[in-house]
Amino acid sequence: MDENTRTPHRSARDYRWDEVELRPYKEDARALFRDITRQVLFSDPALASELRYFEMGPGGFSTLERHAHMHAVLILRGHGHCLVGSEVKRLAPHDLVTVPPWTWHQFRATTDEPLGFLCMVNAERDKPALPSETELAELREQPHVAAFLDGRPDA
Amino acid sequence: MDENTRTPHRSARDYRWDEVELRPYKEDARALFRDITRQVLFSDPALASELRYFEMGPGGFSTLERHAHMHAVLILRGHGHCLVGSEVKRLAPHDLVTVPPWTWHQFRATTDEPLGFLCMVNAERDKPALPSETELAELREQPHVAAFLDGRPDA
Repeated sequence: MDENTRTPHRSARDYRWDEVELRPYKEDARALFRDITRQVLFSDPALASELRYFEMGPGGFSTLERHAHMHAVLILRGHGHCLVGSEVKRLAPHDLVTVPPWTWHQFRATTDEPLGFLCMVNAERDKPALPSETELAELREQPHVAAFLDGRPDA
Repeated sequence: MDENTRTPHRSARDYRWDEVELRPYKEDARALFRDITRQVLFSDPALASELRYFEMGPGGFSTLERHAHMHAVLILRGHGHCLVGSEVKRLAPHDLVTVPPWTWHQFRATTDEPLGFLCMVNAERDKPALPSETELAELREQPHVAAFLDGRPDA
């Protein structure tokens, strides 16, 4: 989507939108992620935030990361799990996920269907930080977090 | 929702959310609207925008208004029509509606089911302006706009 496009109405069809490009999840080659795409639904100089749609295939996951900015997430399709801090939660359509500043988080499509969600973020925001080996080891000290990170959140 | 609540996960059930209050659409007694409710899904000092969910019953409509701030809308359920400027568009689930600054707009549930949509707005924003009698007469000069305002958008 051109950032200055203000087409009044854009149709949706099967989680794709008119005038919205299907993009790679992110460009950071250091980040670990799997089978996830990004569509920027709203991005405009007059809007203080952006609204994006992310979708991962079965077994897909977003990067484990944290940053100063917040995420405000609404699940649009499918089921899965998320990690927020040290909490692991099951996700269902229309559930809300709040990721506070500097909180480790990851989303995982843990069923045999895609997991798709809307994510609202401030237009001006910092870059995500990835966990160091020490931080990752600390996270994995909690068995339910380790199980989540290994893709077995209900184990 | 308390603006400082950062519960990581809130469940959804039939377009109601944990910890989210069902509110009147607006408090402005001058504004004309019908059968519409508001739920504030995300509002936090660290978020530059709010995400709200509005739902109107069959025949319901939002206020015809305009303002300096933009609206970024995603239809979550049902069908209906919207007016943006002088354009009238049919709405279906997941469609996107962009309301640029100072553009007259209204949403209408024009079928026998509810119309529900997400609306992202800047947290800091101006109050809506209502049309004067002259402005309303000017809008109604276009037959398709008059038909929409009369609740017969396909007439």
